[in-house]
Amino acid sequence: MANHLSIFALGGLNEIGKNMYVIEYGEDMIIIDCGNKFPDESLLGIDLIIPDISYLIENKEKVKALIVTHGHEDHIGGIPFLLKQLRIPVYATRFTLGLIELKLKEHRILRESQLIEINSESHFSVGAIGVQFFKVTHSIPDCLGIVFQTPEGNIVHTGDFKFDLTPVNNQHSEIHKMASIGSEGVLLLLSESTNVERPGWTPTEQRVGEHVDAVFMKADRKIIISTFASNVSRVQQVVHAAYKTNRKLALLGRSMVNVVRIAMERGYLTVPDGMLIDRDEIHDFPPEKVVILCTGSQGEPMAALARLSTGNFRGVEVLPGDTIIFAAGPIPGNEKAVTTIVDNLYALGAKVIYGSGSTSGMHVSGHGYQEDLKFMLTIMKPKYFIPIHGEYRMLHHHRLLAETVGVERENTFILKNGDIVDIEEGMARQTRNIPIGDSYVDHGDVGIGEFVLRDRKKLSEDGMLMIIVTLSKSDERMLSEPETISRGFIDRDFSGIRKEVNKITIETVNELLLASRTSRNTMKKNIKKAVREYIGAKHKKKPMIVPIIIEI
Amino acid sequence: MANHLSIFALGGLNEIGKNMYVIEYGEDMIIIDCGNKFPDESLLGIDLIIPDISYLIENKEKVKALIVTHGHEDHIGGIPFLLKQLRIPVYATRFTLGLIELKLKEHRILRESQLIEINSESHFSVGAIGVQFFKVTHSIPDCLGIVFQTPEGNIVHTGDFKFDLTPVNNQHSEIHKMASIGSEGVLLLLSESTNVERPGWTPTEQRVGEHVDAVFMKADRKIIISTFASNVSRVQQVVHAAYKTNRKLALLGRSMVNVVRIAMERGYLTVPDGMLIDRDEIHDFPPEKVVILCTGSQGEPMAALARLSTGNFRGVEVLPGDTIIFAAGPIPGNEKAVTTIVDNLYALGAKVIYGSGSTSGMHVSGHGYQEDLKFMLTIMKPKYFIPIHGEYRMLHHHRLLAETVGVERENTFILKNGDIVDIEEGMARQTRNIPIGDSYVDHGDVGIGEFVLRDRKKLSEDGMLMIIVTLSKSDERMLSEPETISRGFIDRDFSGIRKEVNKITIETVNELLLASRTSRNTMKKNIKKAVREYIGAKHKKKPMIVPIIIEI
Repeated sequence: MANHLSIFALGGLNEIGKNMYVIEYGEDMIIIDCGNKFPDESLLGIDLIIPDISYLIENKEKVKALIVTHGHEDHIGGIPFLLKQLRIPVYATRFTLGLIELKLKEHRILRESQLIEINSESHFSVGAIGVQFFKVTHSIPDCLGIVFQTPEGNIVHTGDFKFDLTPVNNQHSEIHKMASIGSEGVLLLLSESTNVERPGWTPTEQRVGEHVDAVFMKADRKIIISTFASNVSRVQQVVHAAYKTNRKLALLGRSMVNVVRIAMERGYLTVPDGMLIDRDEIHDFPPEKVVILCTGSQGEPMAALARLSTGNFRGVEVLPGDTIIFAAGPIPGNEKAVTTIVDNLYALGAKVIYGSGSTSGMHVSGHGYQEDLKFMLTIMKPKYFIPIHGEYRMLHHHRLLAETVGVERENTFILKNGDIVDIEEGMARQTRNIPIGDSYVDHGDVGIGEFVLRDRKKLSEDGMLMIIVTLSKSDERMLSEPETISRGFIDRDFSGIRKEVNKITIETVNELLLASRTSRNTMKKNIKKAVREYIGAKHKKKPMIVPIIIEI
Repeated sequence: MANHLSIFALGGLNEIGKNMYVIEYGEDMIIIDCGNKFPDESLLGIDLIIPDISYLIENKEKVKALIVTHGHEDHIGGIPFLLKQLRIPVYATRFTLGLIELKLKEHRILRESQLIEINSESHFSVGAIGVQFFKVTHSIPDCLGIVFQTPEGNIVHTGDFKFDLTPVNNQHSEIHKMASIGSEGVLLLLSESTNVERPGWTPTEQRVGEHVDAVFMKADRKIIISTFASNVSRVQQVVHAAYKTNRKLALLGRSMVNVVRIAMERGYLTVPDGMLIDRDEIHDFPPEKVVILCTGSQGEPMAALARLSTGNFRGVEVLPGDTIIFAAGPIPGNEKAVTTIVDNLYALGAKVIYGSGSTSGMHVSGHGYQEDLKFMLTIMKPKYFIPIHGEYRMLHHHRLLAETVGVERENTFILKNGDIVDIEEGMARQTRNIPIGDSYVDHGDVGIGEFVLRDRKKLSEDGMLMIIVTLSKSDERMLSEPETISRGFIDRDFSGIRKEVNKITIETVNELLLASRTSRNTMKKNIKKAVREYIGAKHKKKPMIVPIIIEI
């Protein structure tokens, strides 16, 4: 095939999470982001989901660079696993690199990794592709959108963004630069779709600051406030409120301590001298002079807030009259975990401020609403459009939104992970795809598959029955009673069932032994079948049945 | 103890679900409601949770009656399990009885059950307690509040309620009767707390009808609308909209068919002659002349809507241009299941109307908001108050709400299931409690316990390793290599691990055999420990390890 341009995703389409997009031209591939996703309860024992990168490994020599738009987990969480397999340079901004370095250190691969700091003024080339950037506003500092200048035309990737004309700590979008990119002409826009179902404009982050201030003014005991550690703008506003009310600030939770340190060291967060105190010093100050900033706003059971709510955080207690603020709305799926903590905090006598941002005022989204998204489409006025970073209905709604601001319906591509859009002579088509799936991480081990998960599911539902039969190798007879053992199956007295199962097993085995020599597999199959029928009929359960034959 | 009055809950406090309250006076106990609750994902393999009724069984001869306020699952779902253990009469209204009978029929105990139909005019006595009723409005027909006239004074149980001055199908609250109960004097009020976090009044059910009408007017192909089968008012409004737009109505889903039949037979739902069609007849009419009413609005994977969304409902298809309406907001916890179906429906080309009631207009709650709850407290003006039917924070907020309308703070009891409020000479105190838990139902089997669940959890996370060692009874030596088998543990080639585990096992066993005679339990413990250490260090996993020793 002659040189042409291809774009595809290895993650981020039909899902929220594990974002990873690839631009390919001739012998060069550039990766944008490499995130992770957290599993739902159906993926038993799985810790993380990361993109399936087998296609990249097959094309190892083509992959030239990873560019990272910002430092959220769904954009950087897969990087250690990627770098263990592909030695490529990683381009990211100063703050984003700080978070990536933390990860690589944990995986003990920081030293051999090639990290390149960029900013919105940086530009470089990868083969025939020029790369430039523009700043966008989001809920973490130092975010970029990317312009790829290809022989076919310009491709723009928005990163995650909102428009906020009064952001905290100067995290402005470069609107003029975006306008000039749009004026130059954009062949293809990839734009994020998270909040496409919400009408209007995203509120400004400063609104949260106003609510935080108001609560700080009223609180007459200790304040505990929880938010995403990476939301440095929100942390800055907590610092402001603490300053105004003359409170000392303590940090709880490993990621809060780490991220605040990175943000301060690298100049993204300003904390007055003497405000930060150690957790051991909390009791040295009267409660009305202390605020604790902690992790756990999503109800994570091991995070600081959950442990505080159950009295399991050594050295720090929630006391009657304390004010607890959830400065982050629950992400869909986390509602129950959050309200359990709220219940516990009320039981300790605390005042609790919680709920979605629209009810508590303590959260605004970092993802643009419909008008933000329309503004991006309008300012970039792309010929082609690929909505990214969203579940199917979001991509679908984003297409409809794009139509309202002039993108032709047939020029929008609703893709699945692995679907390839090819652009040749300025014309885009989607006709081919790479077959890809998910990669599961189980205790740092990549490569748990469907097979193991199916077994875990079965085990989790009705437990298991093991039936051990010992046969003599020589004269083909059973050497002892079968041994039947269960786990996770039934609580009550098991001896009746064991007796019955053993009886069925003996009958089945003896029948087969009387007949001509039967294969061990047939024997196992028959035991399984007979026992399954009995357990199903008598106890209406379907445990995993594992017959084991030992020959001595 | 002299005769005195006691009130307690066996379910419904610090939870939403399995409501069950008990009033005891002297030798008599009256039960109010007996519901179930659906387990969260942590209760592996469990189908239902029902109240723990061991205290009632211990006091069998005292339990005189079950009175049911209304027919929702969280108020009737435990009845079959209760009646299998206690032969007591069940009092409920005509519609509620219809739903209870359905359940008892499924459990094959309808014939021996004693069901007594009541209405809001009924009154009867149980020992020294007189029982009367008042109608309340809720999201199911024929709901009651209850007044217990006891020697200590009147106790009022609200049932589940909202105030709706323009309810559908005449499901009015008896406000005048409630006022006269309040005037007579209420010693203790038990009032539900579900929506205590929402300010204002609950909107009227008719608002949903207006939105349904508007969508029916615009739709030019088939309409599929999903709601709770028991919300007969909403079903009635769908019938109205179908009538106005001249559409035939088909029903999909077992509970929709059953409940509509009961509602029609018993006079709670009016459907014009000739409107109802069979599902086989759907294709006999043009799509713009058909509406399908179905189950599955909560994303239940086996319900009609989920199957329609994946093309797995025999004989009925979702086609491009069809309109799908979720006429019920997602209950907390169900959001993800619902949006997955929405995604699938969009992929089929349908128009989809979904979201919470406040965004889609297609749902209003059946539970009173803050003003409804304040109205109940105001009209009953109780001396004592027990907020019921809610999680801890709801009960807490309900107490605060009660304070604002004049209930003394110390006269409100925030209870746990099993806590007993004793009333003697008009004075209420909470000093004692019954220790109770949950009962788990697993395939119709009551009595799965913590032990089995702990095993299932462990199995679900890292699977299991079985190691079988065969020893000769006589001369204490191993008769063969250990047999090591895994399930749900690891996907990749297992032979390396097996080799290592066998080696460790042989070493451990031989060491013990060399020493003096060791108990089999010690041997198992040592094998477990040695293998666990190896697997933990080498593979960072913690499967359940089951050593089995066979002696021949």
